[in-house]
Amino acid sequence: MVVTDIDMHTDTPDPDDPVFALHRGGKMAIATTVPLRDAADLAIAYTPGVARVCEAIAVDPEVAHEYTWVSNTVAVITDGTAVLGLGDIGPAASMPVMEGKAVLFKQFGGVDAIPIALATTDTEEIIDTIVRLAPSFGGINLEDISSPRCFEIERRLIDLLDIPVFHDDQHGTAVVVLAALINALRVTDRDLRDIKVVISGAGAAGVAITKMLKSAGVRKIAVVDRTGVVHPSRDGLGEVKQWLADETAEWAKPGSVSDALEDADVFIGVSGGTIPEEAVASMAPNAIVFALANPHPEVHPEVAARHARIVATGRSDFPNQINNVLVFPGIFRGALDVRATQISEGMKLAAANAIADLVGDDLSETFIIPSAFDPRVATAVARAVTDTARREGLARRPY
Amino acid sequence: MVVTDIDMHTDTPDPDDPVFALHRGGKMAIATTVPLRDAADLAIAYTPGVARVCEAIAVDPEVAHEYTWVSNTVAVITDGTAVLGLGDIGPAASMPVMEGKAVLFKQFGGVDAIPIALATTDTEEIIDTIVRLAPSFGGINLEDISSPRCFEIERRLIDLLDIPVFHDDQHGTAVVVLAALINALRVTDRDLRDIKVVISGAGAAGVAITKMLKSAGVRKIAVVDRTGVVHPSRDGLGEVKQWLADETAEWAKPGSVSDALEDADVFIGVSGGTIPEEAVASMAPNAIVFALANPHPEVHPEVAARHARIVATGRSDFPNQINNVLVFPGIFRGALDVRATQISEGMKLAAANAIADLVGDDLSETFIIPSAFDPRVATAVARAVTDTARREGLARRPY
Repeated sequence: MVVTDIDMHTDTPDPDDPVFALHRGGKMAIATTVPLRDAADLAIAYTPGVARVCEAIAVDPEVAHEYTWVSNTVAVITDGTAVLGLGDIGPAASMPVMEGKAVLFKQFGGVDAIPIALATTDTEEIIDTIVRLAPSFGGINLEDISSPRCFEIERRLIDLLDIPVFHDDQHGTAVVVLAALINALRVTDRDLRDIKVVISGAGAAGVAITKMLKSAGVRKIAVVDRTGVVHPSRDGLGEVKQWLADETAEWAKPGSVSDALEDADVFIGVSGGTIPEEAVASMAPNAIVFALANPHPEVHPEVAARHARIVATGRSDFPNQINNVLVFPGIFRGALDVRATQISEGMKLAAANAIADLVGDDLSETFIIPSAFDPRVATAVARAVTDTARREGLARRPY
Repeated sequence: MVVTDIDMHTDTPDPDDPVFALHRGGKMAIATTVPLRDAADLAIAYTPGVARVCEAIAVDPEVAHEYTWVSNTVAVITDGTAVLGLGDIGPAASMPVMEGKAVLFKQFGGVDAIPIALATTDTEEIIDTIVRLAPSFGGINLEDISSPRCFEIERRLIDLLDIPVFHDDQHGTAVVVLAALINALRVTDRDLRDIKVVISGAGAAGVAITKMLKSAGVRKIAVVDRTGVVHPSRDGLGEVKQWLADETAEWAKPGSVSDALEDADVFIGVSGGTIPEEAVASMAPNAIVFALANPHPEVHPEVAARHARIVATGRSDFPNQINNVLVFPGIFRGALDVRATQISEGMKLAAANAIADLVGDDLSETFIIPSAFDPRVATAVARAVTDTARREGLARRPY
C-alpha cells in the first residue's frame, strides 16, 4: 500500500521523484518565537537586555530552564554506523534519518530536536563530545550507533550527565514491543509470566527487549543470532552475548532458531534475518509473531498468519505496525516536562502499559497497538513518564 | 531611548519584567517544513523512503547539500568565557546570548543557526569537539570565546574544516568598523592611506580591526591596552600582542592612550576602558571617534561630539550605531549560498564596502552606517560575499 509505492532501488536523486522532491532543502528549519521589528525589540531580545538573563542564570543555573529553549530541546546524535537497515554509511549520509527523527519529535511530542551526526566512531570521543555538548540540550537521544559500542556509550553517559540519555534503537523498540505484547496476551488470554519467547537478533534492540521483558515478568526467553541460540555453552561470546546467555539460561537451549521456535508462544524478530514457514507452524497454539525487520520482515506477514494468531510488523501497510514513533516523542515530552534526571526502567514500563491501554475496546488480533497518528499516544506516554518520575523521585520540577 | 529604558541592575528574574517575560521558554523553536499527516507522508519523510536519500548521499556526498537542512545551518558555538561585557560566565549562562544570535541569523539572513555552549574551555577539546560536529552544519560561527585562545581555535579550525569558520567577535566587528570608517572618511574627505588610527583594546576585536584596517590600506595604527601603547619596546608581550606591536611598529610610539591620541584622526574603542575628554580634544581636526564599548562607551558620545566631527557607538540610542548584526547574517547567507570553503579577507573587505555603499546620498556626520533594520543590508553583503567567493575560486556551488 504505502511501502510498495516507493521505488527502493534508485539511489541517484531525481528531483521529480516524490521522495527527493520532499527532501529538497531538508525537512526542518529554525523558527524565531520573539518579535524583532525594531531597535526596542533588539534591545530586549539581544543586547543590552539579554545580559540580565545571562546574569540571572550565572547567579542561579536553575533560571536557565525557564528562560532559554534548552529545556525543550533534545539532541538526536548518531555516528552513522548503524543507520536503518543501511549499516555504516557515515555521518553525512545519516542526516536525512536524523532530520526525520527530529521532525517526528516536533510533530508528535512538541520537542525541539537537533540532528547531530558526529565525525567519529570512537567510543571515548563520542562520550567526550556529548558531555561537552550537554549544557546546550535538555536531553540526549542516541540514534543508530552500532552494537556493542552503543551499550557502553549509553551507560557511561547516563552516569556522567544529569539529563535524560536514551538510545531509541534499544529502548524505544523495547517499549513498543512490550506494549504490543501486553495486548497480544490480552487477546489470547495468557500471562507474561508463563510465555515462551524467542527473540531473533542480539544487537541493540534484542538486548533491550530481553531486559524489558524480564523487567515486565517474562521468565522464558531465548535469544538467537546468526549462529543459533545464544547460550552459555557457546564459545567466544563477547561481553554482551555472554550477558544475554546468562540472563536467558533458565529456559534457552542450544540449537537453531527453528529448534527454539518449537512450541514457543512468541517470536520477536529484530534481526533482518529470515525464519522458515515450518518454524512458525511448529510454534504453540495462538502463536504471536512480531516480524519487525524493515522493509523485509523475517517472515512475510501473510505467510505467518497461516499459522500464528497474531502477526505484527514494522510496516505501515500491514495491521499492527510496531513503530517507536509511539514511544520516543512522549517519553521525552514527559521527561522534559518534569526535568527528569534519567529515563528509568519504571518510566519505560509505565510507557508501555500506557500505550497498550489506549487500544481499549478496539482490541483484537489485528489491532493490538494504536496508530502512529493517534493523537492521544504522546500525551498518554508523557503522563505515564511524569507520574513515574515523580513517584521515583527523579523529577526535578514539580509539575 | 532604548537602552536606558532597561533596568540593568536586576539579576533575579521577575516574570512581569519585559526582558524576562520575553525570554520565558526561550526565543526559538524547531519548525518542520514537510507534511506529516498520515502513513503515506511518514513513508516518504521517514522510513522507508528516507533510506533512498541516505543511500544517494552515501554514493555521492554532494547530494547532502541539496537534500538535508545542513547546507542552510550554522552552529553558533561558545565556551562561555567572554560573553558580552559579562566575561567568563560559563556555558549555561551564555545560552540567552547564543539564542539571541541564532534569532538574528534567522531574522536577517534566513540562516538556521543552532546555539551550542560547550562544557569545556580547553583549546584542544574545543577544536576536537567542533571538528566532530562539523558534518552536521554548513558553517561555524565562533562566539564569545576569550582571547588569546580564540585566535588559535579559529586558525586551526579553518585549516581542519572545509566549511566556513568565522569568529564574529573578531571579524564581524572588524567589517562593520571598516564600513563605518570608509563612510566617515568620505564625509571628512580623507583617505585610508593617510589617517592615523588609535585602537583601544588588544583582544579579539582589536586584533581583527588592526588586520582588517591594514588589509584595507591603513598604515598608521597604534593599539593601546591597559598598560599603554602596545609597542615592541615593552617587556613580556604575549604572542598576540607581540604580533600587534610588530604590525603597528611603523607609526606607534610608546606612551599612554592620551599620548597616542594627540593629533590622531581616528579613535576606535573596543576595550571597555575610558578615555578623558582632553584626549579627544587633542585629536586632529575632523576627528572620528568610534566608542564601541557596550553599554558604557569609552567616552560619552555627547562629550566626544564637543571635539570630534563624527561620533559612533555600539548603542541603538545614539546616531551611528556600529553593530555586527549588519555583517554576520549576510556573510553566512552568501557563504552558504555558494558553499564557500572559507570566509576570506577579500570577502570581508567586499562586505565592508557593500555596507558602506548602501548609505548613498543620505551620508552625513550622523549617518555613516545603515540601520540594523535596513532590509537591504544582508542581501548586499551576501551578494558581495558570493561575487568575491566566485572570483577567488572559493565557491563550490555555481550560483
